Amino acid sequence: MSKNDLIDCHDRIKPFIHNTPVLTSKLINNLAGADIYFKCENFQKMGAFKMRGAANAILKLSNEQKNNGVVTHSSGNHAQAVSLAAKKIGIRAYIVMPSNAPEIKKIAVKSYGGELIECEPNLAAREAAAKKIVDLKGATFIHPSNNIDVIIGQGTSCKELIEEYGFFDHIIVPIGGGGLIAGTALAVKYFGDKCSVIGTEPLEVDDAYRSLISGKIESNSTTNTIADGLKTQLGDKNFPIILKEVKSIIRITEDEIIESMKLIWQHLKIICEPSCSLPLAGVIKNREQFLGKKIGIIITGGNVDLKNLPF
Amino acid sequence: MSKNDLIDCHDRIKPFIHNTPVLTSKLINNLAGADIYFKCENFQKMGAFKMRGAANAILKLSNEQKNNGVVTHSSGNHAQAVSLAAKKIGIRAYIVMPSNAPEIKKIAVKSYGGELIECEPNLAAREAAAKKIVDLKGATFIHPSNNIDVIIGQGTSCKELIEEYGFFDHIIVPIGGGGLIAGTALAVKYFGDKCSVIGTEPLEVDDAYRSLISGKIESNSTTNTIADGLKTQLGDKNFPIILKEVKSIIRITEDEIIESMKLIWQHLKIICEPSCSLPLAGVIKNREQFLGKKIGIIITGGNVDLKNLPF
Repeated sequence: MSKNDLIDCHDRIKPFIHNTPVLTSKLINNLAGADIYFKCENFQKMGAFKMRGAANAILKLSNEQKNNGVVTHSSGNHAQAVSLAAKKIGIRAYIVMPSNAPEIKKIAVKSYGGELIECEPNLAAREAAAKKIVDLKGATFIHPSNNIDVIIGQGTSCKELIEEYGFFDHIIVPIGGGGLIAGTALAVKYFGDKCSVIGTEPLEVDDAYRSLISGKIESNSTTNTIADGLKTQLGDKNFPIILKEVKSIIRITEDEIIESMKLIWQHLKIICEPSCSLPLAGVIKNREQFLGKKIGIIITGGNVDLKNLPF
Repeated sequence: MSKNDLIDCHDRIKPFIHNTPVLTSKLINNLAGADIYFKCENFQKMGAFKMRGAANAILKLSNEQKNNGVVTHSSGNHAQAVSLAAKKIGIRAYIVMPSNAPEIKKIAVKSYGGELIECEPNLAAREAAAKKIVDLKGATFIHPSNNIDVIIGQGTSCKELIEEYGFFDHIIVPIGGGGLIAGTALAVKYFGDKCSVIGTEPLEVDDAYRSLISGKIESNSTTNTIADGLKTQLGDKNFPIILKEVKSIIRITEDEIIESMKLIWQHLKIICEPSCSLPLAGVIKNREQFLGKKIGIIITGGNVDLKNLPF
């Protein structure tokens, strides 16, 4: 991946995404002792950065591929992103979702034009159902994080942040499947002068932290975290980028996630998912390391069930 | 009040306020059948439009008045606005608050540099305590809504909206003490070509609705609403402006307030007070009237107790 790949990707997806706003809070800066810029992907179309990667991956398909549509299995933001991006680009999207997924997520996918295929609630059934669509319809499978076009698409959020706000000491993001941090690392490599990328991860799902130490992709035996977007593990396409470009990973406890989420909701006045809270929690936790630094944080998404808040 | 008063006011307060962002939601527009622009004063300094009026009223004081400080009685956003504006301008602010006001509001005022004076929890005690400060310290009393400099200050939010987004059919705001709607009406009069101002008010506290019909300031016998910023009644400085410039007032039920608040939180991804929900509720309630219109709505503030949400 070159600098031009990122520039081309950004130009390609611009008609399909928002250049999301950046917010700051004097009170949070005082509390953290740092100068923090929050890039608000909760204001992105369909409410998450995932729109960027999905749009790029679909736009890069050949006309023949586009004619046959795309498929993914997800019950999260990626499902909505693929549905909406496909609709805007004018192709079909098949979304495989476990039958026990929340009704609200099924409705969201359908409202964005995705064709819902329900399956048994386990990974094998999801993969089998998706493969069936690939075989039957010739649809292209779009992985949520382990797909190089998705990775580059996710990097455009950080590219916008750096282009508008100049030099940063650190860009800090949460780590789930690894797509966002790998894309962000590429954006920092090509556009961020002397900037480092730092990951944050729930202590309860610390596969990336352990992978960075061992040098190979580690798994999670449990995924007991409120940050429901961060339960997945790294893949062979994003891990080499992470291993090479990411400086360090800070692990965050559940209490720290909730505390940081409260700070963001109260002082930035925005609605964002628990996953978004980890970078700020990391800055507060490692105060000495970040004192006086200029920091960019990507607020990843805002699709929250308001009936199920931790406070 | 002339057009120049508004222009001068805006220039005067600009260094002390944010030009707040404007958000839109395709989903809300589809639902309402209108083209709605939300001017987000929840992102204003101290979290509400009240910063505008407080800054203007304080900046207009003579040097001698400034030396003696300012005083107000409030347990809401105006108390925080006067505290922060006074601090930024470098003068003292005395804030009279009932002893039973929530601890979080007392802390907020102190954190913005206000000097807290507690009194018995009734209006007579509040007014007496404020008068004592005026007599003792020579401080100037700043009313939250019935003060012409405050009214003009509040109008700058609508002025920004019109300057940035051009023609509107309607600007819709909530009505509490009448400062915001009176200021907004002046901004529309001088800057809004063929635009009308519409107020929204809780059915449970409909003094302004009745005042507009009777032609004199009416009172409320009860103030039983979740929209805690809208419990106050109009004053003799803002009522003549409202009577002359406001087209109509739509009354909103408590259920409609909560339903609209949910829509805004879920789709705009912002945290805002219950009071902010009334204008959208009005658009949805009177769908026929607003079909296809371009509408500006002022989201008034974001200081919400997250532990006490109606959903």
